[in-house]
Amino acid sequence: MSTLDNVLSQIDANIDVSIDRLFELIRIPSISTDPAYRDACIEAAEWAKNTLIEVGFNAAIRPTTGMPMVVGHHAPENLPKDAPHLLFYGHYDVQPADPLEMWNTPPFEPVRVTGPDNIEKIYARGASDDKGQLLTFVEACRAWIEVNGHLPVKVTVLFEGEEESGSPSLAAFLDENADELSCDVALICDTNMWDAETPAITTRLRGVMHDEVTITGPSRDLHSGLYGGVARNPIRVLTRIVADLHDDDGRITIPGFYDGVKAVPPETRARWQGLNFPMDAFLGEVGLSVPAGEAEFPALEQLWARPTCDMNGIISGYTGEGTKTVIPSEATAKCSFRLVTGQDPLAIRKAFRDFVNDRLPSDCTATFDGHGAGTALEVPLDNPFLQKAADAMSEEFGKQTVLMGNGASIPIATSFKETLSMDSLLIGFALNDDQIHSPNEKYNVASFTRGTRSWARILQALAE
Amino acid sequence: MSTLDNVLSQIDANIDVSIDRLFELIRIPSISTDPAYRDACIEAAEWAKNTLIEVGFNAAIRPTTGMPMVVGHHAPENLPKDAPHLLFYGHYDVQPADPLEMWNTPPFEPVRVTGPDNIEKIYARGASDDKGQLLTFVEACRAWIEVNGHLPVKVTVLFEGEEESGSPSLAAFLDENADELSCDVALICDTNMWDAETPAITTRLRGVMHDEVTITGPSRDLHSGLYGGVARNPIRVLTRIVADLHDDDGRITIPGFYDGVKAVPPETRARWQGLNFPMDAFLGEVGLSVPAGEAEFPALEQLWARPTCDMNGIISGYTGEGTKTVIPSEATAKCSFRLVTGQDPLAIRKAFRDFVNDRLPSDCTATFDGHGAGTALEVPLDNPFLQKAADAMSEEFGKQTVLMGNGASIPIATSFKETLSMDSLLIGFALNDDQIHSPNEKYNVASFTRGTRSWARILQALAE
Repeated sequence: MSTLDNVLSQIDANIDVSIDRLFELIRIPSISTDPAYRDACIEAAEWAKNTLIEVGFNAAIRPTTGMPMVVGHHAPENLPKDAPHLLFYGHYDVQPADPLEMWNTPPFEPVRVTGPDNIEKIYARGASDDKGQLLTFVEACRAWIEVNGHLPVKVTVLFEGEEESGSPSLAAFLDENADELSCDVALICDTNMWDAETPAITTRLRGVMHDEVTITGPSRDLHSGLYGGVARNPIRVLTRIVADLHDDDGRITIPGFYDGVKAVPPETRARWQGLNFPMDAFLGEVGLSVPAGEAEFPALEQLWARPTCDMNGIISGYTGEGTKTVIPSEATAKCSFRLVTGQDPLAIRKAFRDFVNDRLPSDCTATFDGHGAGTALEVPLDNPFLQKAADAMSEEFGKQTVLMGNGASIPIATSFKETLSMDSLLIGFALNDDQIHSPNEKYNVASFTRGTRSWARILQALAE
Repeated sequence: MSTLDNVLSQIDANIDVSIDRLFELIRIPSISTDPAYRDACIEAAEWAKNTLIEVGFNAAIRPTTGMPMVVGHHAPENLPKDAPHLLFYGHYDVQPADPLEMWNTPPFEPVRVTGPDNIEKIYARGASDDKGQLLTFVEACRAWIEVNGHLPVKVTVLFEGEEESGSPSLAAFLDENADELSCDVALICDTNMWDAETPAITTRLRGVMHDEVTITGPSRDLHSGLYGGVARNPIRVLTRIVADLHDDDGRITIPGFYDGVKAVPPETRARWQGLNFPMDAFLGEVGLSVPAGEAEFPALEQLWARPTCDMNGIISGYTGEGTKTVIPSEATAKCSFRLVTGQDPLAIRKAFRDFVNDRLPSDCTATFDGHGAGTALEVPLDNPFLQKAADAMSEEFGKQTVLMGNGASIPIATSFKETLSMDSLLIGFALNDDQIHSPNEKYNVASFTRGTRSWARILQALAE
């Protein structure tokens, strides 16, 4: 038997003990958004550090102005000189558990349950996002080192404790520790498989630009009877501007918005068409049926490869029960643009603001409050590690690994690219129905088992 | 000296005592919207009833399912058979006083203060709206009866205690007491003068139709990254519909909306132009400069004689601090249409809903929640009492009485027309700067004095 076979057997033999360890971590309610759980976050960081040391890493808690990072190194001396150096990223913090009354079991008391669908699942907050996911990698390393004495590659591990709070300390930490954390490639375990049977690597993430606009008309709220007809209503101004942002074909009308946006290459388009993405079911599950984006593009491209403009919130005037005869002074909309490679978030922000100002009646004003902005990310398909990792996973699952897009942003991947000049392989074993961020979050035992086995294979493959 | 001269002298001689009586009424905090002040409302009704009896009315508290009405009759036996019968309406309830910290003096402890502008004012909640106004009529009656033994006309008085709460008991009360309350004309004292020197009768009120529309797109809130591009955003749908309601010239685009709307007669238009309404100052005071209504109509017509469509509120998605990457499931707008004579509120409601439904993507739904609706009102300029009352006021002020419009609705006037088949003369002595519904509400002592004197003259004029 090869070393890898022995590692895989070791994983299988100890899977229940591995899941017990996951349960230990889950029981620590490390909710980073709630100051009441600060001690729990630190306890989870300690747990992670101790576990890394136990596995065979040189690990330490690394303070930040917020929750600490955990950094571990495993650098075997007897590796070939050109053995790659991998950075693995996961996060030990979790989302709040409320609404508690919607949970079938207490969120921080994990249970293993085989449901009527005959699928065994682990129910708990963090079971999937991200404690279950990050532990697949740790347990793969454990089995490798138990069998082989060391990993076949150099590995640095970075666990963050503020991912669910917007990662306020991350940028500075990467900056300050760039030399220590720069590797050949990053592995990020926080994404989904294509489906329960099909592994996936996410190679495209959209960027995002958040902005908030407030239109001010009258200097105070007015009586809509006494002033209605002559007084400019900022809701009318704002809704007109928002409506103008899209044409009838779903195209965004901001001048220059599509400058630099490249078409999806024909081979990628063909590959995506071959995926037979169940768009009808995807939309049907949320009560929709008509793709709402640019009519000229296939729906999957609307989702993965085309930029968007969405209002995330709008508010003005009286919004309680019944009526109030008011012409409000102000109207506000929060908008976000999902961006693709070739678009500069800050240039888009400026173009949006110009678009608004160009449409402003002379007695109204617009003020803006810019929030986060990040560029889109594409892992080049010729990245030397990408195909090796994909093949290793294909072997584990007996099915071709899907190279997929994701319409959302994963800022850490962008930070790794921008600060550490590293591509990221986004490899995860979560499923669409894992209910992350919601009550009754779960992780399939099969996700955990095959995830751990996949990492064992990937470590081997990237060493070669 | 004529009887009227004696009545006017009597008013002048006793004005301080009259104001003392107003202070008594003001000190009763009859806030109808707040159940905590229920007893105070009943006390105010008792006070009004007792005062009417003291003046010479046959008066009683009349229970409703809400706050009681006060009804008084004065029907002298020795009047000519064709002496007119007038219904006077006012309300004894007031708006809440909050924010209390914005008041310079306690809201229910009235004070008489002569300001740096040398104008003597009464500061208190209800000083103007409507306790000061209604008492001008009562004190005029008092002087008439003191001097003459009786009024020169038959008078029925109706005081309501729920005007500031939307008059929930009024329609049923009018219905049930239609015979008792039907008179030749109604006098409503709840409006403004043209300016501090110029009396006014309001002869046009706009109607109103309130509706609320909720657009539902996805069946639940979605992640704007994971779904953005293919998922229909109800904010986009709603803002497009709202934007479509007006064309670039400010005209409302709902089919049939203007059917039945009549142009202002040339003589009225000329009269309004002669008023030199200070539109620039009117808009400038609230930070605006460009009349926002139908470009083809003079601004004063936009305000008094043209129908409008205004959103009074809009809400959807995330409206807290910062950002949330959400495509909301629903978006809601509260809208109101100000209507003019010739428009049927319920037909307008239907046309609006058709307009919305016609613009709905096939996978979205719209639900509606209709609120109040009332038709517009015009007092015919040939109403036999109108010119007499106007002339009486012109005599008091030494200036021509302005026949003005008002963009708002005064539902009681519509109810009198619809339920009791009576026109209403809207005669009031409040001023634009009275701060009704706001902290530091005031009523000029001159409003009270000349208002009382005006009613004395009007009673005489209508008797002739």
